[in-house]
Amino acid sequence: MTPKYRYLLIYGDGGHANALREIIGHHTITICGDEWKTSRHLSDKIVIGVGLVREHPKRTVLFNGMKEKGYSFPNVIHKSAQIEDSAKLGVGVQVFANAVISSNVVIGDNCIINSGAIISHDCVLGDNVHAAPGGVLGGDVVIGRDTLLGIGCTILPGIKICKNSFIRIGENVIANI
Amino acid sequence: MTPKYRYLLIYGDGGHANALREIIGHHTITICGDEWKTSRHLSDKIVIGVGLVREHPKRTVLFNGMKEKGYSFPNVIHKSAQIEDSAKLGVGVQVFANAVISSNVVIGDNCIINSGAIISHDCVLGDNVHAAPGGVLGGDVVIGRDTLLGIGCTILPGIKICKNSFIRIGENVIANI
Amino acid sequence: MTPKYRYLLIYGDGGHANALREIIGHHTITICGDEWKTSRHLSDKIVIGVGLVREHPKRTVLFNGMKEKGYSFPNVIHKSAQIEDSAKLGVGVQVFANAVISSNVVIGDNCIINSGAIISHDCVLGDNVHAAPGGVLGGDVVIGRDTLLGIGCTILPGIKICKNSFIRIGENVIANI
Repeated sequence: MTPKYRYLLIYGDGGHANALREIIGHHTITICGDEWKTSRHLSDKIVIGVGLVREHPKRTVLFNGMKEKGYSFPNVIHKSAQIEDSAKLGVGVQVFANAVISSNVVIGDNCIINSGAIISHDCVLGDNVHAAPGGVLGGDVVIGRDTLLGIGCTILPGIKICKNSFIRIGENVIANI
Repeated sequence: MTPKYRYLLIYGDGGHANALREIIGHHTITICGDEWKTSRHLSDKIVIGVGLVREHPKRTVLFNGMKEKGYSFPNVIHKSAQIEDSAKLGVGVQVFANAVISSNVVIGDNCIINSGAIISHDCVLGDNVHAAPGGVLGGDVVIGRDTLLGIGCTILPGIKICKNSFIRIGENVIANI
Repeated sequence: MTPKYRYLLIYGDGGHANALREIIGHHTITICGDEWKTSRHLSDKIVIGVGLVREHPKRTVLFNGMKEKGYSFPNVIHKSAQIEDSAKLGVGVQVFANAVISSNVVIGDNCIINSGAIISHDCVLGDNVHAAPGGVLGGDVVIGRDTLLGIGCTILPGIKICKNSFIRIGENVIANI
């Protein structure tokens, strides 16, 4: 369950931001463009509602800039997501419907685990990783920071993927990258 | 949750029809063949229990004929399906276990969203679309009517697929069709 | 829900065994190597916590040996798994988060239905089958014993796969094997 925040800012007004609004389930304050630079008096809690693949680097830049300004980043977690107690999540993590985060997984800051994505036991995801809908990671996978895992991709157990990687839609990863 | 109907007809006696019966969870009246043409005195509510890919055109023909006869088409929704409040569903829609229908999605009449299929935010599905188990649509995808999305297929965000299309099992769609 | 057992043995101390421990949710006794041959005085209930693909034959050998020693094999089922009432499960079956087992499915002994795997209506799985995370079986599929279904594989409705088969990660099976 997502904790209830008063005065929660959401950056962005596209489909990803709207999906987050619906998960949060109460009124939020929408900001766009450079407004976050001057909106900290409205709230110090912010959710980055930018999800598209082509906007991925933007998420990292925004997170770093907002962190410097003193914002904090609540996690937004769909009520149907399955997250084991032993999993450790960073800040600003977004977990969508029916996603699975299994035992002893570590998820970095500012990650998106999108609808139905499966992160098996003992995986480690760096900061700013976006696991798109329906991707499946076997156990003990390590994903470097700022990496995009495309829709429905699959990754063999034990694989390591370096930072700034881009796994394509439906790609089956069977060797380290 | 599926609303409770007395005197609900189910057309078909194969595996798909049985799966629907189990979701509905109470007694129903099974009809086959051309019986629907003369069974309206038993009930005016009917569920089309034909799911196989090769029977897909049959679903559309049945729906149109039954509609003309004055039947109405209750939605059948598995208790574990995740459907956001902002999503709009037509009539005669069947949503199976662990399927996800995200925010602002529009689903036409007589569609099947099968087990574990994921329909991301802002997708629009025309009438009589069958999303087979485990398929994953990115955000803002548009699917034309009478289209079959095969098991485990993936579709990039923003893609448009025209009516009467057939996406194969495991196919990754990265351009408009 | 997993029934509560006192004195439940778990064989193995890797990631798969830990994931099972977390599903079971109370203290268990860990044994490794050949300890099961002499541990029956501790408990007669045992869970085989070996999941890796390369260790698959080991699961069958262990199960047969333990059965001969008189152990029984409780099923371990994640609270989010969707299993229809009409499905029949053998003993020693492990079902992980958000897995789907649809109507009239038959699952043999010592099977693993891993996270998010979908077993559609009327499928029959022999003993010792491991359906890895995110795999999707259409309806009426028959899987022979000791078979591995790789991560994210897809199988057309009605397909038959013979015993001791190995379906690769992301493989799309469209003909009998």
